[in-house]
Amino acid sequence: MVPTEINGQAAIPYKGVGKHRPEGRKFAPRIATCIDYPDDGDKRVPTLKDALIKSGLKDGMVISTHHHFRNGDLIANQIFDIAHELGVKNLIWVPSASFECHVPLIKYLEDGTIHHIEGSMNGSLGKFTSHGKMKGVGILRSHGGRYQAIQDGEVQIDIAVIAAPTADPFGNATGDRGPAACGLLGFALADSQYADKVIVVSDTIVPFPCVPWQIQGNYVDYVVEVDKVGIPEKIVSGTTEVTKSPDRLLLAEMTAQFCDEVGIIRDGFSFQAGAGGTALSIGIYFSEMLRARGMKARFARGGSNKYLVKMLEEGLTDFILDGQTFDLEGVRSMRENWNHLNTSPFTSYNYHGKGNFASMIDVVILGATEVDVSFNANVVSHSDGLLLHGIGGWQNCLASKCVILPIPLFRDRIPVILDEVTTICGPGELIDVIVTERGIAVNPKRKDLLKKLNGSKLPIKTIEELKAEAEKICGKPAKPKFTDKIVAAVKWVDGTVIDVVRQIAE
Amino acid sequence: MVPTEINGQAAIPYKGVGKHRPEGRKFAPRIATCIDYPDDGDKRVPTLKDALIKSGLKDGMVISTHHHFRNGDLIANQIFDIAHELGVKNLIWVPSASFECHVPLIKYLEDGTIHHIEGSMNGSLGKFTSHGKMKGVGILRSHGGRYQAIQDGEVQIDIAVIAAPTADPFGNATGDRGPAACGLLGFALADSQYADKVIVVSDTIVPFPCVPWQIQGNYVDYVVEVDKVGIPEKIVSGTTEVTKSPDRLLLAEMTAQFCDEVGIIRDGFSFQAGAGGTALSIGIYFSEMLRARGMKARFARGGSNKYLVKMLEEGLTDFILDGQTFDLEGVRSMRENWNHLNTSPFTSYNYHGKGNFASMIDVVILGATEVDVSFNANVVSHSDGLLLHGIGGWQNCLASKCVILPIPLFRDRIPVILDEVTTICGPGELIDVIVTERGIAVNPKRKDLLKKLNGSKLPIKTIEELKAEAEKICGKPAKPKFTDKIVAAVKWVDGTVIDVVRQIAE
Repeated sequence: MVPTEINGQAAIPYKGVGKHRPEGRKFAPRIATCIDYPDDGDKRVPTLKDALIKSGLKDGMVISTHHHFRNGDLIANQIFDIAHELGVKNLIWVPSASFECHVPLIKYLEDGTIHHIEGSMNGSLGKFTSHGKMKGVGILRSHGGRYQAIQDGEVQIDIAVIAAPTADPFGNATGDRGPAACGLLGFALADSQYADKVIVVSDTIVPFPCVPWQIQGNYVDYVVEVDKVGIPEKIVSGTTEVTKSPDRLLLAEMTAQFCDEVGIIRDGFSFQAGAGGTALSIGIYFSEMLRARGMKARFARGGSNKYLVKMLEEGLTDFILDGQTFDLEGVRSMRENWNHLNTSPFTSYNYHGKGNFASMIDVVILGATEVDVSFNANVVSHSDGLLLHGIGGWQNCLASKCVILPIPLFRDRIPVILDEVTTICGPGELIDVIVTERGIAVNPKRKDLLKKLNGSKLPIKTIEELKAEAEKICGKPAKPKFTDKIVAAVKWVDGTVIDVVRQIAE
Repeated sequence: MVPTEINGQAAIPYKGVGKHRPEGRKFAPRIATCIDYPDDGDKRVPTLKDALIKSGLKDGMVISTHHHFRNGDLIANQIFDIAHELGVKNLIWVPSASFECHVPLIKYLEDGTIHHIEGSMNGSLGKFTSHGKMKGVGILRSHGGRYQAIQDGEVQIDIAVIAAPTADPFGNATGDRGPAACGLLGFALADSQYADKVIVVSDTIVPFPCVPWQIQGNYVDYVVEVDKVGIPEKIVSGTTEVTKSPDRLLLAEMTAQFCDEVGIIRDGFSFQAGAGGTALSIGIYFSEMLRARGMKARFARGGSNKYLVKMLEEGLTDFILDGQTFDLEGVRSMRENWNHLNTSPFTSYNYHGKGNFASMIDVVILGATEVDVSFNANVVSHSDGLLLHGIGGWQNCLASKCVILPIPLFRDRIPVILDEVTTICGPGELIDVIVTERGIAVNPKRKDLLKKLNGSKLPIKTIEELKAEAEKICGKPAKPKFTDKIVAAVKWVDGTVIDVVRQIAE
C-alpha cells in the first residue's frame, strides 16, 4: 500500500517489473543563448554565494549535488549555509547520495531551510527521517532512477552545484585529476543536462580546455574557484581491502564456485561486484579462475578499485566500465587507460532509455539488509525499522542476467531472511540466488540454474530451510513498530513507488 | 527581404547579430523504456529496409544523415532507394552536408520521394535547386545552426540513420577505427539525441562495448550490419596538400604576417583554419613562427589533417579540437592521442547553448565566394547566381575574436569584392579582415587592429580601393538574373532567416 500523492505531487504505485509504460516526453530545459554568456568563455564569479544569487536562489527551489566526493564533500553544506544566511526556505535537496559529512544539514532540515531530501538519507540523516522529523516526505531513488526522474521531469532541478576536482573557466570539468581527484563525475551528468542553472565549483582551474570534459561547459552557467573543493583522504576509500573474515571469505568462495558451476565464468563474460570486502574477494576468485584457464572477461562494471585495475592491467578483462572510482588506483587507471571507461547512470542504469548496460551483465554480486521468503530484498532499512542507507545502483543492477546476494544468515543475532522484508526495494522475481554461510537458496523461478546444479556439492537449500535454520539459532525476530506517518517513499527504476518507510514508533 | 513562412512553417527574419532571443524550451524527445529494447542489448535487424520499416517510415517524414563519409557515403542513397521501393513520398532529407555522390537522389527529388533538403545543396544538387526544380524550399544551415534547429525543435527528425565505421550490437558507435574510418561522428550527435528513431549502420560490428562510444547506444533503436558502409578512398581527402600556387602562397604569407603584426601569434593563442591549400599554408607559417620563438598554441581547431597532427606531435599546440578529420593521419591521431579531442557542433558551434567554443578562438581563417564593401560575405552561391555550396561551420566561426578571409581579388576574371553580395551568409560586422594578393582591407570597425598596423609594410587598403582595383582589371561584373521564386533560405546561427536564394532566370 503506497500513497498516490507525495509532497503534493501525484505518485504512481508500482505495477510490477516491466509493467509501467511511460507516456509523454522528456523534460525540456529552457533554450539558452550565447547572448547571455561571455564571448571569451570565462564564466567565473568570485564566490559560491555570488553564483547562487545570480542563479536566482529562492524559496522552494530544487538544489542538486553529486556524491563523488563521498564523505569528503565540502560543498553541499556551504550551499545551505548560504541559503540560510540569505533567509531562503523550503529548499529541496537532491543529492545523488548523502554521507555523515552532511550531518550539519540536520539543523537546516529542522529550521525549514531544507524541506526534504530526494536522493538518499544515509546514517544520521536516515535516523532523523525515520523519527519523523523531516518536514516533507523523503524520496529514495536508485542511481538510474535519479537519472530517469530528472530526464522525465519528475524532479526539476533549479540549481545544480557540481563540485569538480579540475575545471576550466568555461565550465568543462573532470574528476580524474586535481588534489581532490575522485575519478569521474557521472552522477552529475543528468544535473548538467537538465538543470535550469548549473554551477561548477573547483579548487583547480586550468586554462581552457579542461580535458576530459566529463562535464561539458556548454551546459554550465557559472564557475567558482574555491580553496578546497573536497577532502582527498575522505574522498577515496583508501581502506577498501579484501575481507579477512573467515565467514565472509566462505561466502565469497561459495559465490565464486556457484558462478563457475552454473557456467557463468567463461571467456568474454561480464560481472559487477561492489566495493565491500566480500565482493572484492569474489573478484579475486574470478581472477584466479580466468588466469588459470587462460580466459578473460569482456568487461567488469565498477565501482573500480585497485583489484579491478589489476585485472585490467593483467589482461584478465578487456574493459572496466566504471561508474565511480573507489581508490586512487582507480583514479589513476581512469586517467591513464583508454580501456578504463567513464560511464554514467545514463549509459548504465536509466530504465527510460533505449536499453542500458545493466541488463547485459552476466552476473552481479550485491548486498541486502534483509531478504524474504519470496526473495524480495531490502537495502534501505534494517530490521529495527530505521532508514539507514540509500539504494545506490542496487535496484538497477537487478536487471542483470544473474543476481546473487551473498549475505550472512544473521547479523548481531538477527536473522536476515524473514517472512516479509521491512521495506521492499527489489522484487523477488529479479533476485536469483541467496548465498549464506549455511547454504545457497536459488529462486525457484530459475529452473535453468537449479538444473545446472544437479549433482553439485554446494549446499543448495530452499530459502524456507535457510530461514528456519536462522530462526532455530536466533529465534523469530520481533517486528519493528511504526506509526502511520509515511516518512519516505522508495521509487522503483521506472519512477513508480514500490514501498514506503514509516515513522518509527518511539 | 525574406519570407515569414517557408515550407508552410513560420520563419523569423534576421534581426542582427545577437538580437534574436529564443523563447521556450528545447525539443523534448519521447520517453523511451527498456521494456521495448532487448535485455541482451542486441538491437541488430537484418537489413536497412527492415530497420526503416520498424522505424515506421512513412510519407512526409524527416530523415537525417551525416556527412563524415563525405564523397564516400554509401548509405544516404540506399535510404531513399528503399523509400522509393516502398512508395513513400514527400520525405524531407536533413543531411549535415551533401556531396556529388548524392546526385542519384535527384531522381527522387524529381519523382516526389524527397520533397526538399534541409542542410546543404552542394554542386549538382545546388544547381538543381537553383533551377527551381525542388518541390519545397531548401534550407541552408551552418553546422551549429543544424544543431540549434534540431535542439530547438525547428527540425524534428523522425528517423536518423547514422553510418558508422565501427559499432556494437547495442548501437555504440565510433568513427576512429574500421575500414571506413572517418575520425569522428560529431555531426550525428544532435540526430542521436533528438531523433525519434535512430538507426546505426556499420560494416564492422564488434562485441559490446564499442569504444570510444562517440555515438551512445542508449539513444539507438536499431543496428544494421552491411558489407560496406563507405568508400575509404573517398572518405579521406588524401590529396589535401599545401598550395604550390604562388598567388595562394602570397595570400598565406600575408595573412600570417598580418596575424603576427597585430599580436595574435603569442604563447597560448588559438586558431582555426580550414582544409584548403591556402589555409594549410597559413598553419605552416604559424608553426614556423611558434617553433622559432619557442612558443606553442593552446589549441588548434580543425578539420584536422597531417599538418595539424604534426604540430600536435611536435608540441607546437597543446590540443587539437577536432570537428572532422580530413585525412588518415587525423584519424590515427584522434584514435591514439589523448590531446586530439573529439568535438561536436554542440560544443563548438551551437548558438543556443550556454556559450560555445567558437567565440573563444583568437583567429579564424575562412574562405568566401564574394565579399561586399560592407564586408558582408557569401559562401553558398557564386556571382552567376548558382547555389553551389553549403555553409559548413563558416557562420559559426564568425564568432571568433578575429575573422580573416584570404581571397583572390578575382576568379576567372570575375571580381570577388562587389557592391553587394549575391547571397548574404555572414554580416559584415563580424568579418574583420580581407586579405587579397593586391592588398589587405581591415573592417573600419576594428580600430584596434588598424592602430596596431601603424607603420606596417603590409599593403593596407580600404575595401573600396580593392574593389576599384579589381574592376579596373576585370570591369564591373554583370548581376545574375533571377525569377521571383525563392528556392532556398539561408538561416543565421540563431535560426532566423538572413537571406534567400532565388531561381535562376533561364
